Amino acid sequence: MATRRIYVGGVPIGGGAPVTVQSMTNTRTEDIEATCAQIAAMRQAGCDIVRTAVPNAQAARALKEIVRRCGCPVVADIHFDYKLALQAAEAGAAKIRINPGNIGSAEKVRMVADACRERGLPIRIGVNGGSLEKDLLSRYGLTAEAMYESAMRHVRLLEQAAFTDICISVKASDVRLCVAAYRLMAQKTDFPLHIGVTEAGTEYAGIIRSAAGIGALLCDGIGDTIRISLTADPVRECMAGNELLRALGLRKNGVRIVSCPTCGRTRIDLIDIAQAVEKRLAGIDRDVTVAVMGCAVNGPGEAREADFGMAGGNREGLLFRKGEIVGKVPMDRIVDALCAMVEEG
Amino acid sequence: MATRRIYVGGVPIGGGAPVTVQSMTNTRTEDIEATCAQIAAMRQAGCDIVRTAVPNAQAARALKEIVRRCGCPVVADIHFDYKLALQAAEAGAAKIRINPGNIGSAEKVRMVADACRERGLPIRIGVNGGSLEKDLLSRYGLTAEAMYESAMRHVRLLEQAAFTDICISVKASDVRLCVAAYRLMAQKTDFPLHIGVTEAGTEYAGIIRSAAGIGALLCDGIGDTIRISLTADPVRECMAGNELLRALGLRKNGVRIVSCPTCGRTRIDLIDIAQAVEKRLAGIDRDVTVAVMGCAVNGPGEAREADFGMAGGNREGLLFRKGEIVGKVPMDRIVDALCAMVEEG
Repeated sequence: MATRRIYVGGVPIGGGAPVTVQSMTNTRTEDIEATCAQIAAMRQAGCDIVRTAVPNAQAARALKEIVRRCGCPVVADIHFDYKLALQAAEAGAAKIRINPGNIGSAEKVRMVADACRERGLPIRIGVNGGSLEKDLLSRYGLTAEAMYESAMRHVRLLEQAAFTDICISVKASDVRLCVAAYRLMAQKTDFPLHIGVTEAGTEYAGIIRSAAGIGALLCDGIGDTIRISLTADPVRECMAGNELLRALGLRKNGVRIVSCPTCGRTRIDLIDIAQAVEKRLAGIDRDVTVAVMGCAVNGPGEAREADFGMAGGNREGLLFRKGEIVGKVPMDRIVDALCAMVEEG
Repeated sequence: MATRRIYVGGVPIGGGAPVTVQSMTNTRTEDIEATCAQIAAMRQAGCDIVRTAVPNAQAARALKEIVRRCGCPVVADIHFDYKLALQAAEAGAAKIRINPGNIGSAEKVRMVADACRERGLPIRIGVNGGSLEKDLLSRYGLTAEAMYESAMRHVRLLEQAAFTDICISVKASDVRLCVAAYRLMAQKTDFPLHIGVTEAGTEYAGIIRSAAGIGALLCDGIGDTIRISLTADPVRECMAGNELLRALGLRKNGVRIVSCPTCGRTRIDLIDIAQAVEKRLAGIDRDVTVAVMGCAVNGPGEAREADFGMAGGNREGLLFRKGEIVGKVPMDRIVDALCAMVEEG
């Protein structure tokens, strides 16, 4: 089902908008310099929307200056405290992440909803498999149904406050549970979905878990904005998020290298060649696919689909361009020749 | 649909057998020492089945000694040449990867089929989106249907030779196309499926593409054996393959660290702590989940699901064990205390 659209600052989420990449700062929000520097690095790495924890009033005050300086929508991440939500809305946050069920009373929910409605700010409800309500756990166990029901409780509280500008996440650290929960949300509702696998782990394991879970959802058209959570620098989260969107054809711009795994047929150092090509072409922001192939078996066929390509040989390699052979070059000049061809366009 | 089961050496594929990890050597197969050393490293990294290119008669001869020494099933990867397939079967390969449509004649297909049947060797048909038959491309375009039809042509050739001990792959470098092709295979046939994304690229991009595509399939129960193709050392392919199976709960053994992304609430250096814990516990081959959490918001909830866990604080952290708090420890001793608890079991 197509999702509704919300706007986070000027950035659309849902309703067919391009899938966006989010990440979260891990500086002390009160440290404005450090936070703005980190946000700049995150944006450079392709972050569309930044989230920042607002754990106290000092952070809420800092948020105002951060929003003014950073040049992209900032989401305020708030737990429990409705006053911080009001302060963050006042400070210029573009979205509030808060779970209304944890705020304390319907009156407080209404105050937060009113503050957001007045300023056109959406609210993200963020359900986490690790902190589900006890009654839901005992009724459903730790299942997709429990996560769906938890999200809908929060939704109803906002709807009772006449607030519908909502985005939802149902994250779990168990990849299959996470996928099942989002599928249920997508089947039963039309809320735009912020997707991610939570507590994904260190960069290596976390990228694999996140790519599997988020990738499975995106393959089926589920997910309007993504966050890859890593116990690592948030810049790495942004890089991985962008790479995942590119892998699924959901984000263009830049060079996509397809290269074969090397095998016993490979007579050239393809690992070095592919890395050299990837590095040299990293600055290109046209949408280009470049094939770096080791041998004649799959090389020419794959290079036919790529915009540019090479297939290596013993001494000489072939250069391709949109399916046509355009040259034969000694292997020690193949990287130069291929890259020059790509750079010329 | 449940797949049929085949056996590669003693290793079952399909019919509910555990999903296995494959990779391919990139040494010269003729170099027996180098190939055996690489296979040993791959097995150490969790490779269940090794594939080796057999591009010439010398490689086929080397295969005999490699099979004798390496201690795991070896698949011979052969293109076009039926004689090499016969030699590889003779040399002790546990499976032959060859596309019968490329062998040249029904008689040659029959000879290969007979040689494999006599020895109980399955054949993998490996369709690649980059080298589809021209008539299929012009009829279907580069689509899942074209890949399915291509696979079934090869299948029919083997079936005409009364050979049915078949496993199939339908790889593409386009992740969505790849997922669609495997889904079609799984829907229409019960052949065991070897799944992978081909020409996936350098290690970083390739892991993301492979985890997305293979992960999407495994989430739906599609895939009996996997290969992550990277333009990198095949040991890295094995590591990534195992990590992906662990991420989806399809392979146990070893420590799974769940750790939260750090955020502005985190007051401890969680990246260092998580990496230190991961490193120190890498040798443990019990199936254990360890949570390394930065703060009180999600920490205790998530640690409840893990076998062991810690939630960090300013000066002291909490230790959990199967949901129960078992201690409070100064933060400078938390890694030691957590790891000791895990090691004691």
